[in-house]
Amino acid sequence: MNNRKTMRYISGSLVQLEALFLILPILVGIIYKEKTTLDFLIVALICLICGRLIRGRRRDNITIYSTAGYASVAMCWIVISIFGALPLYLSGYFNNPVDALFEIVSGFTTTGATILNDVEILPRSILMWRSLSHWIGGMGILVLMLAILPMTGASGMNLMKAESPGPSVGKLVPKVGSTAKTLYGIYLFLTVLEMILLALFGCPIFDSINMAFATAGTGGYGVLNSSAGDYNTYIKIILTVFMILFGVNFNIYYLVITRHFKDALKSEELRAYLLIIAASIVAIAINTLHMFQNIGEAFLHSSFQVASIMTTTGFSTTDFNQWPELSRTILVLLMFVGACAGSTGGGIKVSRIVIMFKTVMKELAFIRHPRNIRKVHFEKKPIEHEVLRAVNIFLISYIFIFIISILLVSLDNHDGITNFTAVVATINNIGPGMNMVGPTSNFSFFSNLSKIVLIFDMLAGRLEIFPMLILGTLIWKKKRWN
Amino acid sequence: MNNRKTMRYISGSLVQLEALFLILPILVGIIYKEKTTLDFLIVALICLICGRLIRGRRRDNITIYSTAGYASVAMCWIVISIFGALPLYLSGYFNNPVDALFEIVSGFTTTGATILNDVEILPRSILMWRSLSHWIGGMGILVLMLAILPMTGASGMNLMKAESPGPSVGKLVPKVGSTAKTLYGIYLFLTVLEMILLALFGCPIFDSINMAFATAGTGGYGVLNSSAGDYNTYIKIILTVFMILFGVNFNIYYLVITRHFKDALKSEELRAYLLIIAASIVAIAINTLHMFQNIGEAFLHSSFQVASIMTTTGFSTTDFNQWPELSRTILVLLMFVGACAGSTGGGIKVSRIVIMFKTVMKELAFIRHPRNIRKVHFEKKPIEHEVLRAVNIFLISYIFIFIISILLVSLDNHDGITNFTAVVATINNIGPGMNMVGPTSNFSFFSNLSKIVLIFDMLAGRLEIFPMLILGTLIWKKKRWN
Repeated sequence: MNNRKTMRYISGSLVQLEALFLILPILVGIIYKEKTTLDFLIVALICLICGRLIRGRRRDNITIYSTAGYASVAMCWIVISIFGALPLYLSGYFNNPVDALFEIVSGFTTTGATILNDVEILPRSILMWRSLSHWIGGMGILVLMLAILPMTGASGMNLMKAESPGPSVGKLVPKVGSTAKTLYGIYLFLTVLEMILLALFGCPIFDSINMAFATAGTGGYGVLNSSAGDYNTYIKIILTVFMILFGVNFNIYYLVITRHFKDALKSEELRAYLLIIAASIVAIAINTLHMFQNIGEAFLHSSFQVASIMTTTGFSTTDFNQWPELSRTILVLLMFVGACAGSTGGGIKVSRIVIMFKTVMKELAFIRHPRNIRKVHFEKKPIEHEVLRAVNIFLISYIFIFIISILLVSLDNHDGITNFTAVVATINNIGPGMNMVGPTSNFSFFSNLSKIVLIFDMLAGRLEIFPMLILGTLIWKKKRWN
Repeated sequence: MNNRKTMRYISGSLVQLEALFLILPILVGIIYKEKTTLDFLIVALICLICGRLIRGRRRDNITIYSTAGYASVAMCWIVISIFGALPLYLSGYFNNPVDALFEIVSGFTTTGATILNDVEILPRSILMWRSLSHWIGGMGILVLMLAILPMTGASGMNLMKAESPGPSVGKLVPKVGSTAKTLYGIYLFLTVLEMILLALFGCPIFDSINMAFATAGTGGYGVLNSSAGDYNTYIKIILTVFMILFGVNFNIYYLVITRHFKDALKSEELRAYLLIIAASIVAIAINTLHMFQNIGEAFLHSSFQVASIMTTTGFSTTDFNQWPELSRTILVLLMFVGACAGSTGGGIKVSRIVIMFKTVMKELAFIRHPRNIRKVHFEKKPIEHEVLRAVNIFLISYIFIFIISILLVSLDNHDGITNFTAVVATINNIGPGMNMVGPTSNFSFFSNLSKIVLIFDMLAGRLEIFPMLILGTLIWKKKRWN
């Protein structure tokens, strides 16, 4: 089967899969007797029919090559976003089609940046669809499909490489299909556990389900205008803990399940991740001490905010835009760092930062002792030249996309911090930024051009730059994918 | 001779050389009958005596190894800065020794960021010393010494590698000593040419000499509070042209002298440099059109400001801090790009940017055609793996220093754009930033800690990160340089 047909087959199947996911908001709509139920029902039918048409005839075995793998992933995410935006647009709560697309891309990419002033006026079916989109996007919709579709091993690897966050795909289990199943098993277990805990500690059931979906995907859409600010302290602590848990590399959980506790604890990335979180919490708590009634409250808010930003979730319990400059700067820097590779979080990823840091240290050692040539080690293994190259290329492309985005967004003539953090918050899939895009504001004031740039950034960030770039060059050169 | 003695010999010689340079402000002080003449005279004597003491016995041949080369360069720059700050502190115009050090480091590193509110109250001898420090620092004080001292070829190369801007030292002329002489010859010729042209078109003689020194070093200290704003249009155009000329790789001038015009014009870096300048001028002129009386004036200010920022000079003819956000963003981005490698300008350098861009392009091509492995070419030669690695390591260390600096400076609790652009403007050796460090302001309001961080950044930027890092690790580990 050629690449073009493969792409059609995969994206068609995905659109059909999306129809299945739409059942949840439809159920919510029926329970709460909402008018929007019909919109979701119509879109579900459209998805089933279009999916079938796009997909073509059933194939037994699918083989995907590298370029097509990258381009397919980018294409798939765009296609499911367009179908996913339909119920939002039909509902009438979004007058501008670009806004509806922004909102759902922000959902699928687990960004959590909203266009809306007031989320409490939304029907519950729409709130559920927003949260569910985080959950779908968090672990990767294609990873889910890998668990279902029959594919040759290498093809799955090509798709997974393009969708999974981090410098390289961990080889958990020899077969990609069963890896995907294991990942989704852990993901589902942790999500349900969080739902139960939230409900037990006084969170309304509907809120528990939504907040758990949004935490699991490290997304950040809430159901209240105050984000997580109005929940009780227990709930805030549960959310903090689960945000940190979902920012951990899922390989660690696999090691825990298979009782390799020592290996799990020795992970360099995990240690660096927890160290950065702890150091940031202490620094911010001290820096903001004067703003809170006691040291406990300062630590509570500091922990919640650090966990929320570092894992790229984006919930807030307080307006951190008002914090002193040191705390603001630490938060903006954490936005770049992001969560662990192989987690549901975004950003540059802790493992890349650790690898970069170690490369510089090695270079300094090399200049001082030129005869003492050592390889950089990470997680006890020497880093292959290919991985180092990939990390460098990632960093450079990331910077170039960042620069072009800021230039385009600055055409709107808002202040520099707003433009800068709007791009930071979208390309790293966080949600809120600072100043005009701070935690108490939203992204509605941007022009359509800026919104489209930020939509691109969210997708580029979630797919780690390359799939979007490859798709871009293919479209640019008008080449066929055969 | 061991490294420790070598370091003493080199830094001692430099301090003696500094005494020679102090003759110029002494002469100016005598001509204008200024009290500060005595301060300069005293410091010149201190330099001669201390230089002799530090230097020790005369050596015939000096050999320097890599580590010592890097560390020596960093050490030398710190030593000449301390001696250079003495006359400023003795003059009484700087009450805080850190301020005097900041001012002269800003001079030698060709940054041009000042601590002073009012430069017009300064005695002319001090103004001359500030401008002269740009000229000395521009081409590199060690490069000058290479032209004078007898050294083995490799040693000179080791020193030059550490002091010269850009990814690799161009092998202009086989012998380092004669390379240094050629470079200084071109440098002196262009500086004198600019002085004459400025004076011919109505600039006062004293101002012509100072402005030519500051332009040649791409420094940015002026003698008027309005920087270049009060000069006539001819002078502004001459300054614009010479700023752009001093931002060009001096290898190009060598090619021109040796009548290799075609090779000179084919330089990829030169083309990219001129292209970025032209594109930025047009974009900013259009964006600021409404702020000026006619299109000519918009182009004049736009050209001047783009040339000033891109070459990291830092003169201003207008308060670009008031410009629309797109223009501000373009200027901040140009601050990072900087001038050509092998010029007197700072920043990341055009050649590094071009190499990074080409690496990404190659990677995209590689993903699409995995069998078509090409090497990245630059200036018609394949780029060696070592150069690519050096560029990447430079970028990563640059980012790390940048982040730590911003964190430390944010302790002062000024706004984010002020902190960000203060670090950008110092690490890239530009001078003015935005908001509180905009072209009409100065750096005096920062705390001593922030000033020391920014002093470090200016030196790290001028010496391209590594010498300062190596010196830092040596001091940190208290190892001897033997």
